[in-house]
Amino acid sequence: MAVIDTVDFFYLRMGEVEAISDNSQDSLLVRVSSGGDLGWGECDAAPLVSIASFIAPMSHGFCQPVGASVLGQRLDGPDDIARINREVRGKSLDLLQTSHTLAGIDMALWDLLGRRRGEPVWRLLGHGKSTAKTPYASQLFGDDPQQTLAKGKAQRSAGFRAVKFGWGPYGRGDAATDGEHIAAAREGLGEDGILLVDAGTVWVDDVDAAAARLEALTTHKATWLEEPFISPALGAYKELAARAAPLRIAGGEGAHNFHMAQQMIDFAGIGYVQIDAGRMGVSDSRRVADYAAQRDVRFVNHTFNSHIALSASLQAFAGHAQDDICEFPVEAKPLSREITQSLIERDADGLIRAPDAPGLGLEIDMDALARYLVPTEIHVGGQTLYSTPQLT
Amino acid sequence: MAVIDTVDFFYLRMGEVEAISDNSQDSLLVRVSSGGDLGWGECDAAPLVSIASFIAPMSHGFCQPVGASVLGQRLDGPDDIARINREVRGKSLDLLQTSHTLAGIDMALWDLLGRRRGEPVWRLLGHGKSTAKTPYASQLFGDDPQQTLAKGKAQRSAGFRAVKFGWGPYGRGDAATDGEHIAAAREGLGEDGILLVDAGTVWVDDVDAAAARLEALTTHKATWLEEPFISPALGAYKELAARAAPLRIAGGEGAHNFHMAQQMIDFAGIGYVQIDAGRMGVSDSRRVADYAAQRDVRFVNHTFNSHIALSASLQAFAGHAQDDICEFPVEAKPLSREITQSLIERDADGLIRAPDAPGLGLEIDMDALARYLVPTEIHVGGQTLYSTPQLT
Repeated sequence: MAVIDTVDFFYLRMGEVEAISDNSQDSLLVRVSSGGDLGWGECDAAPLVSIASFIAPMSHGFCQPVGASVLGQRLDGPDDIARINREVRGKSLDLLQTSHTLAGIDMALWDLLGRRRGEPVWRLLGHGKSTAKTPYASQLFGDDPQQTLAKGKAQRSAGFRAVKFGWGPYGRGDAATDGEHIAAAREGLGEDGILLVDAGTVWVDDVDAAAARLEALTTHKATWLEEPFISPALGAYKELAARAAPLRIAGGEGAHNFHMAQQMIDFAGIGYVQIDAGRMGVSDSRRVADYAAQRDVRFVNHTFNSHIALSASLQAFAGHAQDDICEFPVEAKPLSREITQSLIERDADGLIRAPDAPGLGLEIDMDALARYLVPTEIHVGGQTLYSTPQLT
Repeated sequence: MAVIDTVDFFYLRMGEVEAISDNSQDSLLVRVSSGGDLGWGECDAAPLVSIASFIAPMSHGFCQPVGASVLGQRLDGPDDIARINREVRGKSLDLLQTSHTLAGIDMALWDLLGRRRGEPVWRLLGHGKSTAKTPYASQLFGDDPQQTLAKGKAQRSAGFRAVKFGWGPYGRGDAATDGEHIAAAREGLGEDGILLVDAGTVWVDDVDAAAARLEALTTHKATWLEEPFISPALGAYKELAARAAPLRIAGGEGAHNFHMAQQMIDFAGIGYVQIDAGRMGVSDSRRVADYAAQRDVRFVNHTFNSHIALSASLQAFAGHAQDDICEFPVEAKPLSREITQSLIERDADGLIRAPDAPGLGLEIDMDALARYLVPTEIHVGGQTLYSTPQLT
């Protein structure tokens, strides 16, 4: 029997962080060791806050630190990972940050188990094979329609048939200008391109504001409109979905456990559910992929971090041939690209798939970690509860 | 024009904290100052994690620290509090802990504004008066039915007509034993007592497990069954509610913003929505109270902390005469009772109401804070981002 011996958090950060929608400007890596084996994961989370959630003193029985349900636990197989997930979500029920911390730990546990057994994670998850996905280049809208046109052309030249434009000015000005951005994006992509649009929750829960953008999206054949609203605004989603058909609505990145994704599938009328393994973990992502398949909702990963998170997100739906597109960050910061010794690359057909290699299939570049590491210390009541661990 | 000059967090803790369902074992108090005025609030949160969320370095534009949207903001009236809420929830969208931090700040902002204007918060919120509520004594089930019987009798003797039993062994053994607890609770309370039962999410999303307890609850005339499931399990709630009628289902303490409570009202079939101002703030609690009233769902506070949090929770529905019961913690730890110089007491009829006094109507006992204060420091990248502030 092997137990979880250590869980180490590494807070990495670019020298400068801007107030833009780019999650690759920092990273929280998790390293788990058990019986001499190592596994790595990545949280899409505010690093300091997730570190605090792992080591915080207990507040009460259902507000325990995440670490209380992880360290020392048995880790012999997938059932152990399921048990750890249940225990963390139960004992840390009232600690709001929990899921964004557990996500990276869960990822590391799967990676560790895969390495120990010499199997890719997707096989441990029960998938028979790793099917090819069309990666979509995920990038911000340009500041004006001309920039958006140029960005569309650039990605097409770079070999991406599918491109997502998001955030930036979209939804912040008038509907006419937004329409010009959509027209420009379509022109840049060409008629046969897959055009995806991300509103980044800009309308919060205002259905009419979102509906004013539907005509341009339909005219220019967008495949989906993503995150018109914040995740819990289920009623707003449902109403918009009815008005938008055949254009489909996408959402779900705000979900940080299976049940939140389930309620979007059941009550929000979405056509695509977008799941970030860095926010809910591989285990819950896998459950969502299966649930979506049963309800004819397409599963797509949400990924804006390193290829550790990308690989982890691909594992959950690796075997689902019908879920055939995936998010592929193309504007990620150097930190995010340098964390791993290699990257998940497109094949000759421009497709990608979850690696056919043990665990998540990627090796960490320890020198890169040293370059970006942010020394951090937390002291409570005279005790040092966290101090950046040694890299070696 | 006044701006928010400082926001100070004070982490208080009992010498010993047990792994039981008692949120009063620690506390995170918030003190806000603006133009020479002070206001106080309390978060029902893991203190260290919420402190970290206030001062964490920015991760990206939508994962900014809570403090970035609070410090230096204009604070002249209720509209300013609404704007600050919107800004925090937008710029800290991807920082999961946010709501549990904002809640205490929002409370302090209302307290400050009320003190500055010499008005109780409920009046600033637009309520014409502060109506009387029947407080229910909120306590854990006994370890066995005999203990539960004794606890029921004790609260009845202490003058509580309404009593809630929760957590402890309930739902963790078989349905027959749970039924004996319910029978014992009813016997202890007497025929005319208001019996409330809290399952503390023990069945997660297992409808059949919950349904096996319905007969005993109906036989012994419980008013509600609370939190059979975790908050996002809307489908499970809905199915159980249909099977439980006329027994009503209560839930909502897991909601940490207006939209999460809204979706429980819209999609979970609950008869009572339970809102903790220490988790979503006074502002969003007020919105939920109004929304519930429109849909014939009864609003009840959830409170397991000091009377700062109790007063704040009462403000939101102070004017709603139809929402006539309220949670009143009776097993709170000394820390929780000593934070304020006075407590909200029952009147001759055994009823309580939101204080008719400026702000939240309570004064902080600074000596008590000194007794329970936990010195805390957070250092990131060579800078001290948090150090326990001076009490004076």
